[in-house]
Amino acid sequence: MTDTRIQKLARVLVDHSAEVQPGDRVAIESTTNAEELVREVYELVLTRGGHPHLLLNLPDQDKLFFKYASDAQLDFTPTFQKLVTEQFEAYIRIRADVDTRSLKDVAPERQSRRQKANSPVRSAMLRRGGDKTLRWVLTQFPTDAYAKEAGMEFSDYEKFVYSACHADENTEDPVAYWRQIREQQKKMIERIEGHDKVKLLGPNVDLSLSIKGRKFNNSHGRHNMPDGEIYTGPVENSVSGWVKFTYPAVYQGRVVEGVELTFEKGRVASATAEKDQDFLLTMLDSDVGARYLGEFAIGTNFEIDRFTRNILFDEKLGGTFHLAMGAGYPETGSLNTSIIHWDMICDMRKDSEIRVDGVVIYRDGQFVI
Amino acid sequence: MTDTRIQKLARVLVDHSAEVQPGDRVAIESTTNAEELVREVYELVLTRGGHPHLLLNLPDQDKLFFKYASDAQLDFTPTFQKLVTEQFEAYIRIRADVDTRSLKDVAPERQSRRQKANSPVRSAMLRRGGDKTLRWVLTQFPTDAYAKEAGMEFSDYEKFVYSACHADENTEDPVAYWRQIREQQKKMIERIEGHDKVKLLGPNVDLSLSIKGRKFNNSHGRHNMPDGEIYTGPVENSVSGWVKFTYPAVYQGRVVEGVELTFEKGRVASATAEKDQDFLLTMLDSDVGARYLGEFAIGTNFEIDRFTRNILFDEKLGGTFHLAMGAGYPETGSLNTSIIHWDMICDMRKDSEIRVDGVVIYRDGQFVI
Repeated sequence: MTDTRIQKLARVLVDHSAEVQPGDRVAIESTTNAEELVREVYELVLTRGGHPHLLLNLPDQDKLFFKYASDAQLDFTPTFQKLVTEQFEAYIRIRADVDTRSLKDVAPERQSRRQKANSPVRSAMLRRGGDKTLRWVLTQFPTDAYAKEAGMEFSDYEKFVYSACHADENTEDPVAYWRQIREQQKKMIERIEGHDKVKLLGPNVDLSLSIKGRKFNNSHGRHNMPDGEIYTGPVENSVSGWVKFTYPAVYQGRVVEGVELTFEKGRVASATAEKDQDFLLTMLDSDVGARYLGEFAIGTNFEIDRFTRNILFDEKLGGTFHLAMGAGYPETGSLNTSIIHWDMICDMRKDSEIRVDGVVIYRDGQFVI
Repeated sequence: MTDTRIQKLARVLVDHSAEVQPGDRVAIESTTNAEELVREVYELVLTRGGHPHLLLNLPDQDKLFFKYASDAQLDFTPTFQKLVTEQFEAYIRIRADVDTRSLKDVAPERQSRRQKANSPVRSAMLRRGGDKTLRWVLTQFPTDAYAKEAGMEFSDYEKFVYSACHADENTEDPVAYWRQIREQQKKMIERIEGHDKVKLLGPNVDLSLSIKGRKFNNSHGRHNMPDGEIYTGPVENSVSGWVKFTYPAVYQGRVVEGVELTFEKGRVASATAEKDQDFLLTMLDSDVGARYLGEFAIGTNFEIDRFTRNILFDEKLGGTFHLAMGAGYPETGSLNTSIIHWDMICDMRKDSEIRVDGVVIYRDGQFVI
């Protein structure tokens, strides 16, 4: 008997995220330990008239790859993923790691060499995701490894994941639920988009930035599951003030705690951290754009009620905002093209507010409607 | 700790069958329950400098597919398999069924519709296998389902499979072993090829046929694992005499027992069976070629010492010959292009001999050297 939560998550992925239509070629990529969810997605794609194509990896495949791969092998762009991102109509990716730190001993040069080989896949995905010829979504199947990373018992973590995806026992129609989220977030965006000055105030932040002429993106489960955020790219040189991120800032598996940044004319003028400050400074000096913001976002998912060291979940934390240092999303109007994109998250649930052109639109983690 | 037999089988597949070279794109196709063997093959392809591409299916995927598939879905040629057979350098297929009879309730029209959609894959594989631009091999991972079909305990069946592949504990260098098989079979072929009249005599057979101008194929583990047979396509109208097949003749999942055939000028003049004779006659009337031979073969693998209702093994049974009704292999010189190819096996281990142009070259299951 399949867990009904898995069936619900499959419905969200197939009917809401990928919106599978008859005749669609649909790739379903995961590892073999997400077999239960993959099977549900496979069946549902068939019933929707699509052509499912499985790409199942071994749970330890990346580790084995880096163990043996020569430079020529690192440089080789994976054939099937390239074909999928260039030609298919839908691409459902399901993370299901058995070891979240399996690549910790891989030399960074080898990892970045591999990333470069994968860049045709990434850029085709972004380009065709942008013009909506490819509907792609990234989700995660709960595993022991993620539970451990989150410091949670496995069964609690499972509940957390399905609740965050609104695929829990209590949600009768998960697809309808995400459509509702879309409408709610649309209203939030209407309160903020088209204005100029945004002011963030609270115990951890005193920051102002301009969103003049910039577009907000309504993230309601099309590309990420779970989802729940609205985001834009702030005017690059408009940011000024101070912020202390209340959650650890994780990048490339490194955890930097207690990051504080001060901005002047958009640029980070001073940066400190309680732990691993050197790594923070090195990353901020990657290139010119790395000291400027690429993204300003508000997390809206209150089923995500804790930090789990997993950016797919953390950045959607209800009652937080996050800023990304480095590259922005061109569709928002962001001009930042840095090679880094580092999300850092700050709590707003207490004594905090957001003002837009002088009007309080958000207080203590909630939009004021 | 991985079973060393699995490592040995991986070596045979990668180094002997597919002969993986640096830069080769190598597809490895199986179901998720052959994960152990797939992992070994994946690692070995990497160490040989190839680019491994996994195609892992769910164990029950075919069953699910036929449960839901519409005509449009049945007609759809699988994208990755098409790409692999048209462009890759190597293709390693590992059968690993959990239910050998999972498709027994699928309507034959739906199965044949699916076969038609797969025909570009099959024909690319045969064409590029023929001109040696694609090195492909089919093998099998032992599962409970196959053991049950063979009427054996699982651990006995495992031993049987690895022994048949010369990947057992006792074989130190399985790749060297298969090269030795190639040399042995080459000598057998030298005894028979280039001659004219072949006479098969024994308690179950009194048959003569001509092999004049026909080529023998040395099957030593390039396309099948296990392997061990030499075969040709007899001159179509030369076959005359009688044969009673000592093993059940299995086709499309149907089992016909006690088949006896009488040939006149190459054509089956009378055909009887102890069980399911109607099916036999229907198949023999599929088209003109179905009543003529396409293949005459001698099985040489004495590790395969019993019938297991599995043609990948059965046709190589040491001390047997088999005849295929219907289509032959063009590279042998066969002109038979029937839509059927039905292998039927006959024991020669007792009071039997094969004469070639009057000389006894084979007696009681063994070549006379």
